[in-house]
Parts: sequence; structure tokens; C-alpha cells
Amino acid sequence: MSTSAQIGVTGLAVMGRNLARNFARNGYTVAVHNRTASRTKALVEEFGGEGDFIKAETAEEFVAALERPRRLVIMVKAGEPTDAVIQEFAPLLEPGDMIIDGGNAHFADTRRRERALREQGIHFVGMGVSGGEEGALHGPSIMPGGPTASYDSLGPMLEKISAKAKDGAPCVTHVGPDGAGHFVKMVHNGIEYADMQLIGEAYQLLRDVAGYSPAEIAEIFRIWNQGRLDSYLIEITAEVLSHVDASTGKPFVDVVVDQAEQKGTGRWTVQIALDLGVPVSGIAEAVFARSLSGHAGLREASRELAGPQAVPLGKEEAAAFADRVEQALYASKIVSYTQGFHEIAAGSEEYGWDIDLGAVSSIWRGGCIIRAAFLDRIRAAYDARADLPSLLSDETFAREIADAQDDWREVVIAAVRQGVPTPGFAAALAYYDGLRAERLPAALTQGQRDFFGAHTYRRVDREGAFHTLWGGDRSEASA
Amino acid sequence: MSTSAQIGVTGLAVMGRNLARNFARNGYTVAVHNRTASRTKALVEEFGGEGDFIKAETAEEFVAALERPRRLVIMVKAGEPTDAVIQEFAPLLEPGDMIIDGGNAHFADTRRRERALREQGIHFVGMGVSGGEEGALHGPSIMPGGPTASYDSLGPMLEKISAKAKDGAPCVTHVGPDGAGHFVKMVHNGIEYADMQLIGEAYQLLRDVAGYSPAEIAEIFRIWNQGRLDSYLIEITAEVLSHVDASTGKPFVDVVVDQAEQKGTGRWTVQIALDLGVPVSGIAEAVFARSLSGHAGLREASRELAGPQAVPLGKEEAAAFADRVEQALYASKIVSYTQGFHEIAAGSEEYGWDIDLGAVSSIWRGGCIIRAAFLDRIRAAYDARADLPSLLSDETFAREIADAQDDWREVVIAAVRQGVPTPGFAAALAYYDGLRAERLPAALTQGQRDFFGAHTYRRVDREGAFHTLWGGDRSEASA
Repeated sequence: MSTSAQIGVTGLAVMGRNLARNFARNGYTVAVHNRTASRTKALVEEFGGEGDFIKAETAEEFVAALERPRRLVIMVKAGEPTDAVIQEFAPLLEPGDMIIDGGNAHFADTRRRERALREQGIHFVGMGVSGGEEGALHGPSIMPGGPTASYDSLGPMLEKISAKAKDGAPCVTHVGPDGAGHFVKMVHNGIEYADMQLIGEAYQLLRDVAGYSPAEIAEIFRIWNQGRLDSYLIEITAEVLSHVDASTGKPFVDVVVDQAEQKGTGRWTVQIALDLGVPVSGIAEAVFARSLSGHAGLREASRELAGPQAVPLGKEEAAAFADRVEQALYASKIVSYTQGFHEIAAGSEEYGWDIDLGAVSSIWRGGCIIRAAFLDRIRAAYDARADLPSLLSDETFAREIADAQDDWREVVIAAVRQGVPTPGFAAALAYYDGLRAERLPAALTQGQRDFFGAHTYRRVDREGAFHTLWGGDRSEASA
Repeated sequence: MSTSAQIGVTGLAVMGRNLARNFARNGYTVAVHNRTASRTKALVEEFGGEGDFIKAETAEEFVAALERPRRLVIMVKAGEPTDAVIQEFAPLLEPGDMIIDGGNAHFADTRRRERALREQGIHFVGMGVSGGEEGALHGPSIMPGGPTASYDSLGPMLEKISAKAKDGAPCVTHVGPDGAGHFVKMVHNGIEYADMQLIGEAYQLLRDVAGYSPAEIAEIFRIWNQGRLDSYLIEITAEVLSHVDASTGKPFVDVVVDQAEQKGTGRWTVQIALDLGVPVSGIAEAVFARSLSGHAGLREASRELAGPQAVPLGKEEAAAFADRVEQALYASKIVSYTQGFHEIAAGSEEYGWDIDLGAVSSIWRGGCIIRAAFLDRIRAAYDARADLPSLLSDETFAREIADAQDDWREVVIAAVRQGVPTPGFAAALAYYDGLRAERLPAALTQGQRDFFGAHTYRRVDREGAFHTLWGGDRSEASA
């Protein structure tokens, strides 16, 4: 066992433990520490053979075990537990040392912590980690923020333990200063919500409108997974849908309570987008769909509401419809990512992070939940033009969505006609039509606001703000 | 001039000035104060004949002019200015005195302030005021929160200055403790956003799909305003649409820049709904539609995106389509209010406010921007059943929406087919279909979450939380 560790991990629940093992398995000496020492002991007993671990019972021992500048990864719950751990360790550290928060912190907390620790000369790195337990062990997608200088020594280690994209590129980059890493991780999760919602809608349509069984739908997803939708989420959807419940012999998906849970990052993504003035309707509908599903009493009370029941199609029509659903899913997915990347761009602008959107799409290609062939196309779009106003402005995406749109519209029409809820598909389409509209009813909105609140409006033909004297002779005044 | 005032108003910008005048015109002696004394002087010079005002130059004079318990209304900007004024006056007050904040405060700030002042024995009343300048002067809808005891002496005064519904009932009630009043005012504004968005979509459809001119659409809105859609917003929509721009001779709505602005309460409504787990997709789409409209660069870059152009209908078809749009608008409006009232119920539950939803609908019947005949129906629904799970559970609304829905669906289908963005109509319909769905794809979502994150799921046939060993033999374990 070495006497000096290149990195330390405190907080050894499953994510922390797996991240520590990942470092050790990659040849680093890892100091490990946990509030209750039994976990530390268990880790070393069970996995000590995988690499070099230094067991630390106390905070002082832990800090003493680290070579300088110290790299201390904290893997505890977001919120107060994170602040508590920072307060415990910060006094033991020296200027130039790094505290790396690998939890799911809100980026605003990360900004606050980074600012406070900067005064002591400590580098605070808010680090988004995606990929769940398996990713943490075998290679996650890593989104570190914090001071650029910290990445010089930390980056190579993260590159080693991170997932690798198919082209071999490590799925980690220095996202930007202070909270940029956690911000991007948050939007990643928001996009994940949207992806899952769109997949859910596609499933529901294939089930209720096309009339396929879960096993048949699993096959369709397997085929889709060989095309442009190739992704981890499509792959596991096929696995879940083909799974048969052992105790009943029924499709697994039919024995699961249809009330989705959530942990909060999807919600944050929408709340922050609202602050930034970015329309993320697809992500919002995904979050709302989960909360709607959970209101069991409300749903129960609404069962008898009038509406059509879907009538399954015949075999041939069903196959043609499935192709259309693939188009609708793909087009809606382009819109979700357009909205998510818009939010990242807006956050980068607001906080001066200078985030490289192409690099972000690149590091999501492996390790994380939304990893997909699709991200190669996004990277290509930003490679071709770094200042792309939106993903929809990319020629390839614009062409694909042009090709998809007749089917996309027909699928939404079928859903509306047959009473199948497709909030995600419909919101994506409305966003698309809203963006391309020559004129929007926002002009009427401005007129109404001026009428009831004298909020003024601008004119298309000259500069300035104007107010109509609605209660008087309706002449116009410069405001 | 009296020497003792029943009420005082500090902050004499247009809202404060008009509220002070309203009190004075109703026979109260009103102490008036402003940071810059010239405003106080101007008010008394200009409107002194309307009633009894006591001019106060300093905070001390202002407080001295009030009879006890003192009732001090602050009408300054939300946020720090409000805190500053509270800090200025609180030390001059005595237990039992009231500070009434009539600004647009965030309810969480109101809760904080109420708590802090309670320790000094001062009653803090967060009071939502709707109706704009005109409402403040002639009778607003008033939504006071704060301690119940404060309403005993304050209530009668507010009842006097408030708007009156058509049946003569004053548009004010004690909404609930601490932040309840500002919370309800916030949701009022969120619903207002949704109403305006739905009206905007109806307008766009009548213009682009039906092929009507703004003047013709104004006529249609005038006719609608004589039916179940009778409301202030429909009325002013007709006014705005029939207005002709003097300088160009064009319809006014065509010379206004179609980029809608917003002040924040709509955004708050959605952000808080997300915290409360309440799906308010209609309000969210309204907020997003405003922000989308404002992204001029993005819209400019998206002009060339492929999509259908609406082809106007012939005269007869147009008239039939207009009737359908009325049905779609009405059905979507029911959904918006369902979502808004759900949010109020959830807030009331979360914060223990015990809000009377029927009373809320009642006080919105006059004075405020969303005043409408429709609110009588909502009050009737809650009168019939105070614990209504949702507005959609009311028999009348359920029947109306049943009758409307074929047209509602056809309107959304026409919009989708012709490329007219109707995010509000579509979101409302998806919410409706989601609520009544026997099964939702949330079961698949839970399966995916269990697959990638071991988040567990529940089963329809037995209690408990379960996890499938997806990476192993796919047997099921109790979690």
C-alpha cells in the first residue's frame, strides 16, 4: 500500500464507492473516508484487491493521506450534507488544494461554494457525473466546472476514469468556471426526461393506435436502435418491454404501477429555463407528465371523462404507422435537444461560462444515460458552425426534420383524434411551428397588455415604445 | 382635514396614488407619504378635493397621523424596496399595528416578512391587488393574506374600496394566513397568461385558417363575449383587433412588433407549480410562447424551416370553423383554470392555508383582469362540492367539455396540419387525455428508471417497492 494518495473520496455510498474503485482500478492510489468508518473498512475488505486504497478513519487522517495539491472528491447528498462536509474539510486544506463535489448539486449552490472557497485559495470543482452506479465504476460521463487551473492536474485523471466514446475520446471536458459543470449536468437530466417521455409516447401510440403487444414493440425498438435513434435509452426500452413478469406471466410493463417518480433535476431544468427566458416546452411537458401520472386520486376522478378510445389499426396499416412514429420521435427529439442546448447557451451567456456546445455533445456520447449516436450529429453541427443560432439551423437537422414532418404531423393528428396523450410530440411540433411563423399572436398580447396595463408596445415601422390612449381618443403617444 | 387617519399609504406611484384616492373617495381619512415629498404634495394638490388626505413628510409624521391600531399600506416595488420600507417603519410601530404590502411580492418573501414581524407583534398582510391603475382607483380585486385577526378591522375597509361582482358581492376575502394572498394573486396572473395565450391562438386560427381580417375577428370576439366566454379579456381583444392604426391605415395588430414581454408572475406560477408537483402545462406554454416570441434572432434563423402554409377556408367553412374555435377555446380555458385551481389547492395544502377555492373564484369575478362570467360557474362548482378533486370533476364542466371535444380535436388537427402553432390548445388537450387515460406510459418510465438507476417500482398487484435484477437473471427483489 502506498503512503500517499493522488486522490481521495469521502462519502462511500454506492456512487462514491464505485468512483473510488474506478480511480483505483486505473492505477491511482485512492484515500477513502466515510462518516461511519465501517463503510470504509467494508470497501477495502471487499475491493482492496482492485488497487491501492488508503483507509482513513478521521478527516485529519484523510487529508494527511493526500499528496499536494490535494484532490478531495466529496460524494454525499446535495444540499446541507455537502455544506457540512465542506465545512469539515476546508479548514484542514491549504491554498491550491481542490474540493471536487461529485454530487447532484444545484449549480447556484456550486457558484456560492466556489466563491466562498476561492477566498481561502481552495479550488472548488462542481462536477456532474452521469451514468449511475455502473457508469461510476466502469466509466461515467463527467462534467467538471470550477477554476480552469484545477483542470490541469485533475483533467488527466478524469479522462482516465471516464467513459470513452466510440472514437476513443474521453467523455470529460472542462465545461467552464464555477457552476458550469453542474448546470450542464442539470440540463443533461432535463433532456433525459424529455427523451424518456417521447419514448413513452411512442410506446403508447404503438400499443393503443397500432395495436402491438409489448413484445412486438420491443422488436420495433430493437430495429430503431439500429438506425439513427441508436441510443442507450432505446436499447433499454426494448429490454424493459420484452421482459415478462415471472409471477404473473404478463408483460412486465403491465404489472408496474404507472406513476412516475422524479428526483428534481428535471424540475430544476425547467425552473432555470424560465429564469433565463428559454422555452423548454418539451422538457416541461416531460416533467408535468410525470407529476400528472402520480396524481392517482385526480386520475381516478377523471376516468369517466368523455373522449375517444383508440381503435387499433390492421396489420399493414400498423407497420406503416410505426414508421411514422419513428419519424415523429426523431423530429421531437431534435426539438428537445434544440431546447436543451438553447438553455446551455443561455446559461453560458448569463454567467459568462463560454461553454463549448460541441464539446458538451461530445462528452455525452458515452457513459451517460442519454448517450446516443445522435450526439455525433450534434457535435458535427457545432463543428461545422460553432455559433449556430440553434440546432434547427443546422442543415442536416433542418433537412431531416423537413423529411419527417408530414409523418410527425400525422402521428400527432392520430393521437389527438384517438385520444392518446402525446404532450411531448405536440409541444415539440408547436415549438417548431412557432419558431418558423412569420407572425405570432404576441402582437395581440402586446396590444392587450397596453390596453389593460399601459405596458406599451413597439412598432414594426419605427423605433421607440408607444402607448395607445385606449380609454380616450385612441391616439398614440410615444412612451 | 381630520387629524387622525384610518389608513395610510406610502409609495405614491400610480398604483399607490390610485389606491389612496380610492380609500379617500370612500370616506376614509388617508395619510399619504412618499420618499420624495413632491409626489405627496402633487397628490393632495391634484386630488385633495376627492376626500380627506393627511400629508406626511417624514416616516414619523406618517405614523403619528394614523389611528390605532395603525393600518399602513406600502405600495412600493417588490423585493428590496419593500424590505427597506418595512425596516424604516417597523421600529415606529406598536403591537397590533398592521403593515399591508399591496405590491406584487413573491409569496415566499411575504411568508418571511410575516414571520419576522410577528415576533414584534406587528400584523403583516401580504395583499394581492389586481386590476391595474383603473382597478386601484375604481375598485380592484383584492387578495389579502396575513393573520385572520387583522381582517376584522381591515376587511370592511377593503370591502368598501374593492370591485363588486354583478351580484353586488365585494371582490375581496381573507384568502388565508401569511403568504396565501400573494400566492393566489400569483396564480391569478398565471391564469391570465394562459387566457391571453389561448385567445392569441384563437385569433391566429381565425386569421390564418379561417381567413378572416382583424376587423372580422373583432366582430367574432364581440359575439363570443355575449356567450359563455363573456369576459374582460375577450372584450378588450375585440377592441384591440378592431383598432386601426392612424399613421398607416393598417389594422393596429399588424403594426405591433410580435414579441411579447412579461414581468415575472407567470414564470413564478410555473416554477412554484413545479415545486408543488402540479402540472400546469397550459400556463407553462403561455409563458414559453411569450419568451419564444421574443427570441427574434432565433426566429429569424428559423424562417426557412420547412412546413405547410395555412390555406384560408371559404366563407361558409370559415364560419363553421369559427364555431369550432370557440369550443376549443372554451374547453382549453376550462383546463387552464383546472390547472390553476389545482395549484392553489396544492399550495393551500402545503402551507396549511385552508383556502376556500369557491371564495377565490368569487373575488375574481370583478375588478381583475381575468374577471368573467365563467367564474360564476366555478363558484357554483365549488358551492356544489367544496372538496371537488378538480374542476373537471364538476358535472357541468365535464358535460361542456364532452360537448366541445370533437370540435376541440378538429381545431388542433387543423392547426397541426396547417402549421399554425397552438401550444396552449394542444397542451390542454393532452392534459385532458392524460388525466382520463386508463394506463399511462409512466409504467415504462418506472421500468427504465429501475433499469438504469435501480430506482425501484411498485406493482399493481401487491404492496411494496421492487427491483428487477436487470444486469443479472432478471429476477425480482423486494427493495
